[in-house]
Amino acid sequence: MLLPCIVSVIYGEKQGLVFACTAALTFALGTIGARFKPKSNIFYAREGFVTVSLSWILMAMVGGLPFVLTGEIPSYVDAVFETVSGYTTTGATILTNVECLSMTSQFWRCFVIWIGGMGVLVFIMSILPLSGNYNMHLMRAESTGAEVGKLVPKVKNTAKILYSIYIFLSVSMVIALMIAGLDLYNALLLMFSAMGTGGFANRNASLGGFSHTVQIITEVFMLLCGINFNAYFLILMRKPKEVFKLEEVRAYLILLFSSIICITISIKDLFPTLYDAFHNAAFHAISIMTTTGFVLMDYEVWPSISKAILVVLTFIGACAGSTAGGIKISRFLILFKDFRRELLKLTHPRSVKKVRFNGQTVSEETVHTIQAFLIIYIVVVGISFLIVSLDGFDFTSSFTAVLTTISNVGPGLGKVGPAGNFASFSPLSKIVLIFDMLAGRLEIFPLIVLIYAGTWKRN
Amino acid sequence: MLLPCIVSVIYGEKQGLVFACTAALTFALGTIGARFKPKSNIFYAREGFVTVSLSWILMAMVGGLPFVLTGEIPSYVDAVFETVSGYTTTGATILTNVECLSMTSQFWRCFVIWIGGMGVLVFIMSILPLSGNYNMHLMRAESTGAEVGKLVPKVKNTAKILYSIYIFLSVSMVIALMIAGLDLYNALLLMFSAMGTGGFANRNASLGGFSHTVQIITEVFMLLCGINFNAYFLILMRKPKEVFKLEEVRAYLILLFSSIICITISIKDLFPTLYDAFHNAAFHAISIMTTTGFVLMDYEVWPSISKAILVVLTFIGACAGSTAGGIKISRFLILFKDFRRELLKLTHPRSVKKVRFNGQTVSEETVHTIQAFLIIYIVVVGISFLIVSLDGFDFTSSFTAVLTTISNVGPGLGKVGPAGNFASFSPLSKIVLIFDMLAGRLEIFPLIVLIYAGTWKRN
Repeated sequence: MLLPCIVSVIYGEKQGLVFACTAALTFALGTIGARFKPKSNIFYAREGFVTVSLSWILMAMVGGLPFVLTGEIPSYVDAVFETVSGYTTTGATILTNVECLSMTSQFWRCFVIWIGGMGVLVFIMSILPLSGNYNMHLMRAESTGAEVGKLVPKVKNTAKILYSIYIFLSVSMVIALMIAGLDLYNALLLMFSAMGTGGFANRNASLGGFSHTVQIITEVFMLLCGINFNAYFLILMRKPKEVFKLEEVRAYLILLFSSIICITISIKDLFPTLYDAFHNAAFHAISIMTTTGFVLMDYEVWPSISKAILVVLTFIGACAGSTAGGIKISRFLILFKDFRRELLKLTHPRSVKKVRFNGQTVSEETVHTIQAFLIIYIVVVGISFLIVSLDGFDFTSSFTAVLTTISNVGPGLGKVGPAGNFASFSPLSKIVLIFDMLAGRLEIFPLIVLIYAGTWKRN
Repeated sequence: MLLPCIVSVIYGEKQGLVFACTAALTFALGTIGARFKPKSNIFYAREGFVTVSLSWILMAMVGGLPFVLTGEIPSYVDAVFETVSGYTTTGATILTNVECLSMTSQFWRCFVIWIGGMGVLVFIMSILPLSGNYNMHLMRAESTGAEVGKLVPKVKNTAKILYSIYIFLSVSMVIALMIAGLDLYNALLLMFSAMGTGGFANRNASLGGFSHTVQIITEVFMLLCGINFNAYFLILMRKPKEVFKLEEVRAYLILLFSSIICITISIKDLFPTLYDAFHNAAFHAISIMTTTGFVLMDYEVWPSISKAILVVLTFIGACAGSTAGGIKISRFLILFKDFRRELLKLTHPRSVKKVRFNGQTVSEETVHTIQAFLIIYIVVVGISFLIVSLDGFDFTSSFTAVLTTISNVGPGLGKVGPAGNFASFSPLSKIVLIFDMLAGRLEIFPLIVLIYAGTWKRN
């Protein structure tokens, strides 16, 4: 929160004072909290899940305060919605006019995306001298994907490597954007939002308000951030050939390019040139699949098939271990392989086969957890959809509002389409959607563990 | 097909001739087919799945012929759509004016629902002197639900008991309807459609065209047909108390009644009296949850929350082992219990627990198959939705069209709502929806096994 203060000083805005006060408050809270020493040092998966969930909720509740205190977002629920939307890299907004926010608040709004993208606790882990065996459990709870691999034996070093790659890409993007003509402030904001696959823009027209070159740079970096960061680690280790052996990365690129081609064909009549159609198709497919949610235009006017592809991409998401949301391609790949094995078992009962992914055997345990994940995902979508429907909006709006928040994308269709926003939902719906955004980012289990009564019973 | 001929003679219609010709054709086909003796008598799950899939496809292709030959449904794809919709007890129609069909064709259209409800091959099994071990594999492939239990040691006798219960309920319903003032013909048609949970009505206003008493009788029998037929077997065995121990039946009734209460509250302002609101809420909730699809009024005018409840009920469906479609409550119950166990394992790693259903342990194998089922279900919905979107209809129409056909319900929202129909879809979409109806009724695996290349390889 000290960074927005600096921004405030530079641009001579008074909002920095509010951020300084909130920073002091969080410091006080932290100091008091640190006085309580735990009775037991046992730290397993359960403790990891609870810690991560509670940290994210606290972060959101404190992170929303400045918006209320500066008066820029009068309702506290709205402020928390906006903050959670940032931290979870969703990019869904309750603001009807983004451009009236102060530069300080704009900065904070986008900065939380950058932090949330790679994981807040992973960030803390990589810089603070923590010891004990709980690092791994924290990282597992906060990272995305079915299997969290340590790149190097020490968790702390894994976190450091991930953040180094992230920072390297971020700096590259800022430089590219500044070469393309943006000033440092705008370049930073856009970078935060794109690298975290968040999707907040400081212009009402989203990316439509920026130049063509900026759009293409953003497109490239969104594409890169949807890839499993293990791929970059392999490149660092000088094993670039192995990147193409990563099944998830291959599936990601194949799915993306086939979507772009289908959309281009379907929308080509809406644009003067084929290139324009391709540019729009590629930008939106990448933006939605990486769950960023930047838009160039109101794609509500596109043919149904293009919108349908975008909805399906919302559901799928990008690679695990990236900053993207959604269910993740690796989960679908493993489930698909498991289904093929099931078919083989039905038709050739004596066959024994293991599910293999990236050349390694996937344990039955992992397959089972992924299946349970997908099913609870659908149940959460169903229940949220029912509650959000109480607001009386049409089926498309209610359904895609839930789908886009739990997938951490941002825009949906109808009322929450590219030209719309989440302002008109009731506070109850907003709270449900806040839960969905957190559930999507933390991949449901941590939040369910938090509210599951059995968690609080002794072993 | 000889039954419609009789109807034709009674009402002096010439369409009976067409049915007689088609009957002769099927007889010829059957006689030729019977000449081919299989080289091997091996009959396992694979053979069961393929037999059931091919039989249903053949039945649909032949069953649609009379509609084309009488000229009442000129397009063959439409005729097959209507027939599959009947056999699979969906009740989705491509007819814009149902009332212009001849009485003979009306009869055939509803009669296939009654046959499809309990299963065509199960029906044949119960009357034909088949021997060998393949009965069980056929029954498994055609019956609904995760676990098909034999009620009595012999499969043939199980089939006979099921059909006896079915016929007993059917006769009771016809008598009740005739007491309520319907003539035999109308009573039979309504009974076929309600007992099979199909939803075809011979009036454009669906059940809105019938008297209040008829509506209530239909409601009761739909409710009964959504219950697992094992419950009736238990009553026959004089163990009525055990019915209430069936977890699925309890969950079915709880879900249904809570939905009815919620809908009643939400729509009460649309009706003059609270009873009217309750009557409409109960009728539609039962009709949708049992996947029948009869309607009393255009529920598109209801508040969003009521429509959302109906969509969720479409997805869930009623009990396994009933004539209803959908995913079935037992699958959700088992998955829910499995998820609870997964949570317990996360929070208390040393706990070992089995999933129990109706007091019996569910094998890991069964849990796994259910999970694979649900996931392939969603994949089929996703792909179908993409193809149907090519027609350019809005999200709500395309999405609920797929959901309502794969769940074998009938009406959806938007273009395919209670006041709409499937006439305006393209032939491609209709073929996809035909596949979805069959996939829903046969619970996907048989159809996937049919088109899976590995099926056709030798062991």
